[in-house]
Amino acid sequence: MSDNQSTKRLWRDVRVFDGHNTLPERMAVIVEGERVTNLTPMSRLDEALASECREMGRGGVMTPGLVDCHTHLVFGGGRADEFEKRLEGASYEEIAQAGGGILSTVRSTREASEEELFEVAVPRLQAMIADGMTTVEIKSGYGLTVEDELKMLRVARHLGETLPVRVTTTLLGAHALPPEFQDDSDGYIDLVCHEMIPAAAKQGLVDAVDVFCEKIAFSVAQCERVFQAAREYGLPIKAHAEQLSNLGGTTLAARYGALSADHIEYLDEAGVAALREAGSTAVLLPGAFHTLRETKLPPIAALREAGVPIALATDANPGSSPIFSPTLMLNFACILFRLTPQEALAGMTAHGARALGRNELGRIYVGGPADLCLWNIDTAAELAYAVQAGRLKQRIFRGEVSHEN
Amino acid sequence: MSDNQSTKRLWRDVRVFDGHNTLPERMAVIVEGERVTNLTPMSRLDEALASECREMGRGGVMTPGLVDCHTHLVFGGGRADEFEKRLEGASYEEIAQAGGGILSTVRSTREASEEELFEVAVPRLQAMIADGMTTVEIKSGYGLTVEDELKMLRVARHLGETLPVRVTTTLLGAHALPPEFQDDSDGYIDLVCHEMIPAAAKQGLVDAVDVFCEKIAFSVAQCERVFQAAREYGLPIKAHAEQLSNLGGTTLAARYGALSADHIEYLDEAGVAALREAGSTAVLLPGAFHTLRETKLPPIAALREAGVPIALATDANPGSSPIFSPTLMLNFACILFRLTPQEALAGMTAHGARALGRNELGRIYVGGPADLCLWNIDTAAELAYAVQAGRLKQRIFRGEVSHEN
Ligand SMILES: [Zn+2]
Ligand SMILES: [Zn+2]
Repeated sequence: MSDNQSTKRLWRDVRVFDGHNTLPERMAVIVEGERVTNLTPMSRLDEALASECREMGRGGVMTPGLVDCHTHLVFGGGRADEFEKRLEGASYEEIAQAGGGILSTVRSTREASEEELFEVAVPRLQAMIADGMTTVEIKSGYGLTVEDELKMLRVARHLGETLPVRVTTTLLGAHALPPEFQDDSDGYIDLVCHEMIPAAAKQGLVDAVDVFCEKIAFSVAQCERVFQAAREYGLPIKAHAEQLSNLGGTTLAARYGALSADHIEYLDEAGVAALREAGSTAVLLPGAFHTLRETKLPPIAALREAGVPIALATDANPGSSPIFSPTLMLNFACILFRLTPQEALAGMTAHGARALGRNELGRIYVGGPADLCLWNIDTAAELAYAVQAGRLKQRIFRGEVSHEN
Repeated sequence: MSDNQSTKRLWRDVRVFDGHNTLPERMAVIVEGERVTNLTPMSRLDEALASECREMGRGGVMTPGLVDCHTHLVFGGGRADEFEKRLEGASYEEIAQAGGGILSTVRSTREASEEELFEVAVPRLQAMIADGMTTVEIKSGYGLTVEDELKMLRVARHLGETLPVRVTTTLLGAHALPPEFQDDSDGYIDLVCHEMIPAAAKQGLVDAVDVFCEKIAFSVAQCERVFQAAREYGLPIKAHAEQLSNLGGTTLAARYGALSADHIEYLDEAGVAALREAGSTAVLLPGAFHTLRETKLPPIAALREAGVPIALATDANPGSSPIFSPTLMLNFACILFRLTPQEALAGMTAHGARALGRNELGRIYVGGPADLCLWNIDTAAELAYAVQAGRLKQRIFRGEVSHEN
């Protein structure tokens, strides 16, 4: 819309949550092109300037567009059958024997064409966009061959080119051991380091490299090899760590300057200190906590005290978190982890962006990108307090209203 | 639409969950006027009949419209501030001193006009309608004077006349003790029995009478007086019971032939037996369980074994369950209570309707009302498995498509 590009657009009398805090006064927000160009208390709004603007709205709460910094939303198949069988009393063994678990998703993802993977991902991503998300990280990790991992990353890139959302991609080759390497996990790590990472990097398909550091996945030593390979290609790293036990993955990741350590229910004080020293972000995933009925809480108080930024994400995936609602995570983080509503919102905005190394996103500031949500509510806390669809009045992406309610 | 009234409408090749089970074959469903007139396996669909029909869709899963049999969705004010303060560390005492808790909702509800209460309830109800709900129960209980309770019931009736949803109303005068009766709870029960129930009944505003039987609310003896008054006016009864302790409210309610006992985390075997003998429905409220971080599970295995029908509801209310999503309850019931997806769905369809004494609703059968949802999914279990907006392809209310996606 060339008209919008040339016109200043004004929102009046909004409560602004800027990515870290709710600003004390009601604000006027002006957007020009793709950027916020003015952020002024209503009491000081220059009416001469205002008269040059198109009036876009009045009242409500404005937040940065939500940032979901940890998803696995490109995948083939679904695991509803497994979910149902387990609730009907099937044991984990029976489900594994019936071909369930993560390897069933690997099988379905390998079998699916790039077009098929794209098509089934679109409604998931649309659900999240309609919920206020403007930036999403998408991981590979269900291909586990060079070609299938690249296929997943291409689908992720294509989603970002097609839908009104910023997509960042993460190579998670070291997600699970594929069946063809069953007795040779080091051999698989060779493949990740010597083929996957180089190919993904050379083809420009990848923004970061991730690992799953856990007894049921890869060891600290194996993850370190992956991080070294990432470093050779100048790629930032992340880790799924301390989800099921305190193995030391977070401390390792911090040593490599990780953008983030994710899950971290079992993280200890030393791990928290390592994150602080590295300037890494802690990513909490309450959807998986809920779905897995986890009871071990991440070390929130220690993270707060150390000043480690806390991000929140959906972990959207077909097994442990088939949840495609960023705003629901705000509620879950408050109820399950006792974050405050402002902490939860920072976790899905400024801190989520930080966990992606995209510090320019997830905040509202003059000169910043106009990725914004206008909500039909009176205080930002309501977003975490109530679970209620339809409150997103406008979603603004790169300066354009891409959703109106 | 007179055209629709006169035309048979056909959905082909749908998986039907009929309110109790998923039918084994893919079905054709024909609707005429407000009723389902044909429910046939695809293999036996008469193509001559089909040719008389308008084609409405093909594939997907069809369920009854969802029934939410326990809500408090008419209320003034909101409690997001209290939610935020508590997470910031305020004690219950501090919140009570600051005017928080249920009495703050009573104050706001009394202050609001009928029009204001209606207006703020509409978006809540719309969120639930967009989530597939076609029948909702709405309780009073934040007025606690004759006039304010009647006001709430009128708003509930008005919502049902205005929006495409069936509303049933429940008088919950015995919800909390209003401040003006602080030292005279028996006097307040007199008011409920001798003025509220008669007035609501005479004005045709009420379909059932409910109580909150708990140490922090009303005693078994007081609840019995309310049930006796309800009986005088021929009104069916329900009870909030055994939520926080095993006081015996459920057994009392069963003796009065209750439609349902709701919450019942603390219900014992004797209480389960009482429900079975009375033919009452057990209503589980996983939203409150989640929000209150309850750990005591309702006696699911005993209810199953006794064959007591289990319904699910949102308990939508501003304090203990500010959750306006029926489908989220399907997920919560499976994750938190370990219901199977089919049990959860029955709980929000056939069994929910049963808890309202509306056995003709919540099921798909020839001759039954055409309140239906068509979902963009392959198996009914997916509704409980994944939390994902946008999957409701069509919502059919009284035979008309009232929502299309
Ligand atoms: Zn993950
Ligand atoms: Zn209730």
